[in-house]
Amino acid sequence: MATKDVQPPSTMDDPVYRTGVLELLGLLAYGEISACERLAEDAKMAPDLEHKVEIAAMATAEFHHFEKLRDRLVEMGEDPFAVMLPFAATFERFHRQTRPSDWLEGLVKAYVGDGLAADFYREIAAYLDPDTRTLVLDTLSGTGHSDFVVDAIRRAIDEDHRVGGRLALWGRRLMGEALSQAQMVVAERDALSTVLVGGVDHPGMDLAAIGRMFTRLTEAHAARMDKLGLAA
Amino acid sequence: MATKDVQPPSTMDDPVYRTGVLELLGLLAYGEISACERLAEDAKMAPDLEHKVEIAAMATAEFHHFEKLRDRLVEMGEDPFAVMLPFAATFERFHRQTRPSDWLEGLVKAYVGDGLAADFYREIAAYLDPDTRTLVLDTLSGTGHSDFVVDAIRRAIDEDHRVGGRLALWGRRLMGEALSQAQMVVAERDALSTVLVGGVDHPGMDLAAIGRMFTRLTEAHAARMDKLGLAA
Repeated sequence: MATKDVQPPSTMDDPVYRTGVLELLGLLAYGEISACERLAEDAKMAPDLEHKVEIAAMATAEFHHFEKLRDRLVEMGEDPFAVMLPFAATFERFHRQTRPSDWLEGLVKAYVGDGLAADFYREIAAYLDPDTRTLVLDTLSGTGHSDFVVDAIRRAIDEDHRVGGRLALWGRRLMGEALSQAQMVVAERDALSTVLVGGVDHPGMDLAAIGRMFTRLTEAHAARMDKLGLAA
Repeated sequence: MATKDVQPPSTMDDPVYRTGVLELLGLLAYGEISACERLAEDAKMAPDLEHKVEIAAMATAEFHHFEKLRDRLVEMGEDPFAVMLPFAATFERFHRQTRPSDWLEGLVKAYVGDGLAADFYREIAAYLDPDTRTLVLDTLSGTGHSDFVVDAIRRAIDEDHRVGGRLALWGRRLMGEALSQAQMVVAERDALSTVLVGGVDHPGMDLAAIGRMFTRLTEAHAARMDKLGLAA
């Protein structure tokens, strides 16, 4: 067994690592297609054509992320849909629990979800083999369609201060649901959690590192809420 | 006044032609964004994730078409949304009149609509100045995501022959609504119809040419229905 100083990098030759990567790609791919679908749904609440187009642009970006992840699964010789399906329930549950009741809630969800996903991608990239890391980092680029959300939310709060309180609560609920679903997924999936936490013979996060990661994700969420003019 | 033999090509210096092109681009741009929206809506009826993704891919292609048309309107110094809005009622009416009642009707609508739009783009391209023509032809490329529809419809008819009769009627209704909306749009818009029909000093279709265009569009529609295994 390798000592902590000379751990070999994880590779696809390690069947547990490979399974974990498949699960991770399936999770991300389902997340992207389901985000795409929800954004398309929420676009219907847009007050005008211009805002509808902004949301559709975000949905389109998510679809292209999905395509990259799917193509990699195909390259790996897997049926992408079979790999994705185990994660359907998680995302359907998340979206069912966080169905926006109006346009502003939809905007906050798009913004918070997009940001949290990008942060999470960046966090996990460090623990992946170079090929998978490049894919994951590549997949998160091309977001940033969501700056218009900041203007829209701040304007709505200026017009009616009570909106700020309601949306702050909503943001907290989104983050709570996201963390609880994430925790359930990792708890159910040994190979996936091994990719993140590490096994006996390859590096990963220790429990303290996972704690620090959650702290960073929560802090970044708070910064995003602040940018929207909302208390985290 | 130029004689019929030495007609100068239409240019943006001609204010009627310019207005007609703006109307055409606004019409196409609204058509694309509204197709994108409807496809996203219909994707919800997909029987599985794989089909949902196929429809989402078509919606994404329509969104990219929209982006090209919008960018040209911006280059021309126009507010794209202001140019598009006059066509909202036409497309909303079309989609209201042709709301698919199930997944198969949604597939036929996607396939027939995609094909008819591409045919129409090719038909009108001939009457446009080179820059606009290139844009319009460019916008129609990238479709062809819809071949999977042929398999799905033929399989459904194999399983239950009554489906063929119902979808054949549906296809006829789609074509009828599309032609009736198209005719209303052209009748209401002098500059747009001048681009197609031509004015005193620039070329366009004469009435016989318009008749032939409709014949070609109808024939191409019949060929598409035939490919789906449906009587036109």
